[in-house]
Amino acid sequence: MTTALIGLDWGSTQLRAYRYGERGEVLDKRVLPHGIRHLPGGGFAEAFAQAVAGWPDAPLLACGMIGSRNGWQEVPYLDTPTGIERLAGALGAMRTPDGRTLHLVPGLRDPGRPDVMRGEETQVAGVLARAPSAIHRGCLLLPGTHSKWVELRDGAVTGFATVMTGELFGLLCRHSILGAQLPPAQDDERVFRRGVETARDSGAAGALSRVFSARTLMLDGLLPPASVPDYLSGLLIGDELRIALAAGWIDPLTPIQMVGEGALCERYLRAAALFGIDIATTPDDTTAHGLWRIAVEAGLASPLATA
Amino acid sequence: MTTALIGLDWGSTQLRAYRYGERGEVLDKRVLPHGIRHLPGGGFAEAFAQAVAGWPDAPLLACGMIGSRNGWQEVPYLDTPTGIERLAGALGAMRTPDGRTLHLVPGLRDPGRPDVMRGEETQVAGVLARAPSAIHRGCLLLPGTHSKWVELRDGAVTGFATVMTGELFGLLCRHSILGAQLPPAQDDERVFRRGVETARDSGAAGALSRVFSARTLMLDGLLPPASVPDYLSGLLIGDELRIALAAGWIDPLTPIQMVGEGALCERYLRAAALFGIDIATTPDDTTAHGLWRIAVEAGLASPLATA
Repeated sequence: MTTALIGLDWGSTQLRAYRYGERGEVLDKRVLPHGIRHLPGGGFAEAFAQAVAGWPDAPLLACGMIGSRNGWQEVPYLDTPTGIERLAGALGAMRTPDGRTLHLVPGLRDPGRPDVMRGEETQVAGVLARAPSAIHRGCLLLPGTHSKWVELRDGAVTGFATVMTGELFGLLCRHSILGAQLPPAQDDERVFRRGVETARDSGAAGALSRVFSARTLMLDGLLPPASVPDYLSGLLIGDELRIALAAGWIDPLTPIQMVGEGALCERYLRAAALFGIDIATTPDDTTAHGLWRIAVEAGLASPLATA
Repeated sequence: MTTALIGLDWGSTQLRAYRYGERGEVLDKRVLPHGIRHLPGGGFAEAFAQAVAGWPDAPLLACGMIGSRNGWQEVPYLDTPTGIERLAGALGAMRTPDGRTLHLVPGLRDPGRPDVMRGEETQVAGVLARAPSAIHRGCLLLPGTHSKWVELRDGAVTGFATVMTGELFGLLCRHSILGAQLPPAQDDERVFRRGVETARDSGAAGALSRVFSARTLMLDGLLPPASVPDYLSGLLIGDELRIALAAGWIDPLTPIQMVGEGALCERYLRAAALFGIDIATTPDDTTAHGLWRIAVEAGLASPLATA
């Protein structure tokens, strides 16, 4: 089958490569452990060669940290508000060692806060392309190491904010006194709920005023050591939701859509239920969809039928 | 001169030993790097022997992590409300390898939150012994790795709370993306202030909603990489003050006294000024003073004149 596009989702830890057919369908997918912080000998060029090896020549479009200051070629951030059209009109381009042109999706910058994203803008493009209902007025949640809350108005990203929930969870479990000398974690739904409720009920003081309770409850015998990670997970995800409410990122008129990994999304859904917040979910192939959508808008790919 | 008491302030990282005269004055002081996490070969016994080597036999009183679960002998926490009398009446005791009796100050537990302290109760006793004005109604701030906010009423600790400000600062600087690949830190007062103001103005959302700005501002060229630690320091100390206000630990009727290290206390004073909060300081020898005061109350030491 004809290859209409090759898309690369090239982040810090992984490199995902997609080969698209003429209707934007993904014909082939590869996942390599060659994020920009984990390059093989031979660096970017070798990682790129592995990602596209054996695939026919086709237009090339990449998103993610590959376009950052520490990437292969830096592409400046694009300020919000930005829709798919502006993204597609601001692609960077570079020559690969084998003489091909690699196009690069710019990251987004919210000058108001300020805040930045790189890679997530392509997930957002994927959601926008598929969910017309979100175009007029929407709120996207992309949970992860650096969770993003994205405000959508009339088909454009009008603002966004980052909460370092996943990274903070890792820091507390791996490097803080709260996570010291714990046995292997066990899944403890009751304790997760307790963490969420503690954050929810912490008011304006917030979960940082309660995080030491992970240690106190354990010393008191009220929290099994193996359940401390679940408690911290509940506390931090709960605090992210508390923050989103306090900061006005969540409002009653705007539906929330979440994009992301299965198990983590499940946690956010359970936490949201304890807050009485409705969150809809969207499948996790939004980056592949977004790359195709941006390529079409930029004229790199010409679909047989509109995606 | 007669040795009336030997006091040990035995924490996680250091062991401080004090030899007292009959008026409670410190005749000799030693600082050893033998906190309970850094014991020499020979363990507790060897560290103890080094701490008191060559000093005359005298009553022995220790406070801090030495009485914790991972210490030499565990002494249970005492629930609040607790004043010096209850502390002195609940000392633990153990036999040292050379046949002496070592008394141990219990830690405190606030059953309401719950929260715990071990070592700080002796600092509080030192403040109470010296500052009659704080006895009726006071608020103590003990900044550090785990900052403590202590509520005093009628000479007793009636409640307290821990904020992990110092530990979180270390985690973010050493292990997070915010601190990655920074040049050596430089002192930047302007940036510290900006961090404090960002936390102060973050409202109920709090500083966790803004901490990623350390990265964004640096990428934007608005924050020199060497100043990121000062920004984070301002953000986290500012958030601790914001939390203390939101949680009601600070109220307009109660004077705040701070106990602690010089440079760190200076930062808290500068941050408090940006909040319009008045904080008085108290000298940093409160633990030595508290050990003496508790020993007198327990009848271990008999002062020639009331301290």
